[in-house]
Amino acid sequence: MTAAETLGRFVAGLDLASIPEDVVEAAKLHALDTLGCGLAAHALGEARYAGLAAVEEAAGGPATAIGVPGGLPASEAALVNGTLCHALDFDDTHPDSVVHVSAAVVPAALAAGEARGATGAEVLAALVAGNETSTRVGMAAGGRFHAHGYHATGVCGVFGAAAAAARLRGLDAAATTQALGIAGSMAAGLLEFLADGSETKRLHPGWAAHAGLTAARLAAHGASGPATVLEGRRGLYAAYVHGEAADPVAQVAHLGERWTTREFAYKPYPACHYVHAPVDALAAVLRDHGLGREDVEQIVAFSDETGVGMVLDPPEEKVRPRTPYAAKFSLPYCLAARLVHGTLDVGSFTQEAIDDPAVLAVTPRVRYELRQYAAAPDAFPGGVRVHTVDGRTLEAELRHQRGAAENPLGDDEVRAKYRASAALALDDADRERLEWLVLGLEQAPDLGALEVLRQARVAPAAAAHASP
Amino acid sequence: MTAAETLGRFVAGLDLASIPEDVVEAAKLHALDTLGCGLAAHALGEARYAGLAAVEEAAGGPATAIGVPGGLPASEAALVNGTLCHALDFDDTHPDSVVHVSAAVVPAALAAGEARGATGAEVLAALVAGNETSTRVGMAAGGRFHAHGYHATGVCGVFGAAAAAARLRGLDAAATTQALGIAGSMAAGLLEFLADGSETKRLHPGWAAHAGLTAARLAAHGASGPATVLEGRRGLYAAYVHGEAADPVAQVAHLGERWTTREFAYKPYPACHYVHAPVDALAAVLRDHGLGREDVEQIVAFSDETGVGMVLDPPEEKVRPRTPYAAKFSLPYCLAARLVHGTLDVGSFTQEAIDDPAVLAVTPRVRYELRQYAAAPDAFPGGVRVHTVDGRTLEAELRHQRGAAENPLGDDEVRAKYRASAALALDDADRERLEWLVLGLEQAPDLGALEVLRQARVAPAAAAHASP
Repeated sequence: MTAAETLGRFVAGLDLASIPEDVVEAAKLHALDTLGCGLAAHALGEARYAGLAAVEEAAGGPATAIGVPGGLPASEAALVNGTLCHALDFDDTHPDSVVHVSAAVVPAALAAGEARGATGAEVLAALVAGNETSTRVGMAAGGRFHAHGYHATGVCGVFGAAAAAARLRGLDAAATTQALGIAGSMAAGLLEFLADGSETKRLHPGWAAHAGLTAARLAAHGASGPATVLEGRRGLYAAYVHGEAADPVAQVAHLGERWTTREFAYKPYPACHYVHAPVDALAAVLRDHGLGREDVEQIVAFSDETGVGMVLDPPEEKVRPRTPYAAKFSLPYCLAARLVHGTLDVGSFTQEAIDDPAVLAVTPRVRYELRQYAAAPDAFPGGVRVHTVDGRTLEAELRHQRGAAENPLGDDEVRAKYRASAALALDDADRERLEWLVLGLEQAPDLGALEVLRQARVAPAAAAHASP
Repeated sequence: MTAAETLGRFVAGLDLASIPEDVVEAAKLHALDTLGCGLAAHALGEARYAGLAAVEEAAGGPATAIGVPGGLPASEAALVNGTLCHALDFDDTHPDSVVHVSAAVVPAALAAGEARGATGAEVLAALVAGNETSTRVGMAAGGRFHAHGYHATGVCGVFGAAAAAARLRGLDAAATTQALGIAGSMAAGLLEFLADGSETKRLHPGWAAHAGLTAARLAAHGASGPATVLEGRRGLYAAYVHGEAADPVAQVAHLGERWTTREFAYKPYPACHYVHAPVDALAAVLRDHGLGREDVEQIVAFSDETGVGMVLDPPEEKVRPRTPYAAKFSLPYCLAARLVHGTLDVGSFTQEAIDDPAVLAVTPRVRYELRQYAAAPDAFPGGVRVHTVDGRTLEAELRHQRGAAENPLGDDEVRAKYRASAALALDDADRERLEWLVLGLEQAPDLGALEVLRQARVAPAAAAHASP
C-alpha cells in the first residue's frame, strides 16, 4: 500500500470509540483554542480582507465564517476561518512536523460538517483524522519543507483538510486516497512573506482548508489523483523537499498507535514560539524575587541559533518593531512589554502598544547569548539573566516552553485563554454557547451553535490593552 | 523593481491600442480555440466531476461554465472551464515556457469579465496581460519545472490568471503586484499523475484559474503578498526549481517588445505534441504517393529522446493503450488510427475507437528510430519511414510540427478546428454566436453571448467517430 492508501484506509475507517479518551479531549480543546484565536483576530480587525472577499464571491451557503453575518459555501468559510485562526500567530503547533495543524483542519472539518449536516461526533472523528494526516505528511519530511522555501503549514495542511472533509463526506478508503492525491496538486505556501511581512503567511492555512475541501469534493464527484502522491518519483517529497530522503510509509505505519493530536503545543502568548520560554523565564525571575519594572537594569536572553535568527537578529530591527506583526518576532519587545505591563496578550500587539514609550525605553536594554539546547528543534527552550539595579544577577531557563506536551498548560488555562480571546468578539452567552458546543462535541446533534461566530464583532484594538 | 513589480506595472498599464494587431488577433483566435477544446471535452463526457462539484458548492453567480445550466461564482466557473479546456490535451502550448497558457488564462479572464460586467475590449486586454505573464514566469525557469516534479501549466498559470483578473478588477500596479505575490503561495501542480494517468493533470489549469481569481480578489480587498515572490530567496524559483539559476527580471525586461502571445502552438490533433509531426509526416507520404492502408507494411517513426519517453516507450504499453487518455500518448496508436481512418480527431480517443481491431492490427507494425533535432526542445520535430507491401521505402519529416509558429496553421484551419469541436456540443446558431463574440471581442459591449456555453450538451462519444 502507498502512504496515501494507508492514510485513506485510516481516515475512512476511524472509529470514534477506538480513539483514546485523552486524544478526544485534546482534539476538542485544540478546536476551542483555535476558534478563540480566530475570534481574537477578528476582534482586533486583522485579515478583514478574507471575509470581504468571501462575501463578494458567494453570498449564501451552509457554512459559518467568523464575523460574516450570512452563510457561505463551505470552501469560502474555511478560507476565512483558516486565515483568521492563524492571523495572530496564537494557534497551536505540532513540533515534530512544524505544522500549525489546527488552523487548517478545524476550519475544514467545521465547514464540511455544516455543509453535510453532520453530528458533533462525526466532526470530532474528522478532526482527529485530519490532525493525524497533516502531522504524518509533515513528519515524513522531518521539518525540511522550510529549508526549501515552503511553509509546512500550507503544504501539509491541505492533506489534513482533505482528510477531514473526505471523512465527513463519508468517502470510502479508495475515494479518500483519490482526495489526497488531488490535494497534492494543490499543496502550496511560499516562505517569501518573511522578506516583507506579507499577509500570505496568514492565508496559508486558510488556503489549505479551502483547497482540501475542494479536493474532497472533486474526488466525491469522480476525479482521481495519484495514489503515489507522497512517495512517488514526482510526488510531494521529490518536489517540495527537493528529493531529500523522506519516508511517509514509515510515518503512516504508526497511525492509530501514536496519536499526534496529543502532541500539539498551545501558545500562551500570541507571538513567535521562540519568545515564549524567555518571557516565562523573566516572569519567574520577577515573581520569585519580587521584582518590579524599576528594579531591572538589563535583560540577557538565552536562545538557540534558530531563535536568534527569528526573534533577536538584526538587533536594530528588533529594538523598534515597525508593525504589530513584526513585534511578534521581537524578543526585546516581548520581554519589555512583559516587564512594563505585567502581561503579554493580544493587546500587546496593537499599533498603540508597540509605540508605547515606556516599553521602547526598555527594549535597548535587552541583550542575548547564544545557547545550545538538547530539546531543540522539537521544542522552543530559552531563558533570561536579569541584572538588577542593585547589582544582583538572577537567572531562569525553560527546557520546554510552557504549552508544550512536556510542560503542559492545564485544561483550565486553555479554557481561560479561549475565554479571554473570545470575550473580545462575543457576548458572554455566545462565548459560553460556543465553548459548550466544542467541549461537548460528541454529544452535539449538529453544529447549529456555530452560528454565534456570525455575531463576532470588531473591538477597538487599543481598548483591549489597558496598562496595569 | 522586482519582477512582480514590473509585471504589475505592465498588466495595470497595458493599453489595448498599443498592442500590435497580430497579437490581438492571436489572442482572440487562441481564446476561440480554447473554448472549442472545452466544448469538445464536455461533449465527450470528460471531466464531468468539475461541473458537478461546482454546482454542489455554489449554485448561482455571474459566471458561465461549459455545460452548467445556471450561473456560478467566477472562481468556480473558472475551475470548471480550465479543467475542460485542457481535458483533451487539445489546447495550445507556449514552447519556450512549456506552459499550456490559454487553458488557465482564458477561463480566468472570461469569468472575471463576466463578474465585473466588462466589455469585450477590456477582456481582450486582460487576455494579453495574462498570456504575457504566464509565459514570463515559465521562461525564467527555462522549462525546468518539469525536471523537479512540477507541471509548469499549474505553477505558472496561477500568475497569468491573477494578472488577467487583476486587470479586469482595475487594480493598480501596486495591487496587481500584491495579487501576484499572493498567487505565488497558491502555485501548485505535481507531475505524479504520470504514474497512473490521474485526472490531476486536467485539473491543473482549472485550479490555477480558480486560485488566480482568488488571489486577485484577496488583493482587491487589501491582502498583501511579497513583491519578491519570484526572485526572492524563498521565492518561486528557489522553491519550485530547487534554486537553479532563473532570471525573471531579464524575462520581464522585454514585456511590450516581445509578445509571447504570438508564439503559442496550436494542436491540430487532440494528443501529445510528440505525435504530431510523425502523424503529419505519415499523411504526407500517403498523400504524395497515393497510398492506402492496405499498401503499408511497416512504419518506422522518428523521434527525439524526450519524444521516445513520452509516446514510444515502453512499447508493450504503447501498442495497446489501456484508456483513451493513454492513447493520446501512444504514437503507434495515433499513426495506426490515422492510417486506418484517414483522420485523427476527438473521435479517435474514445473507448470504442481504441478497441478497434483494424487499428490494433496496425500498431504492432510501428517501430521507431531515435533522432536528434536542432529545433528541439522549443518544437516537436519528427517523421516516419514507410515500408510498403510492394517493397518501397518512403520518408517524410517535419522540423517543426504543424501549428507551431514556424509551421503555422492558417486562421481558417483554427476556425475549422473550433467549428468541428464546438459542433459536438452546440447547435450551429450557438456555435456561430460564440465565434462571433470571441473573434469580434474588441467590439462586444459585454460577454452576454457566453451564455451559449450553458447549453452545451454531452454527445454520445462513439457517434462522433465514423470510419471513412
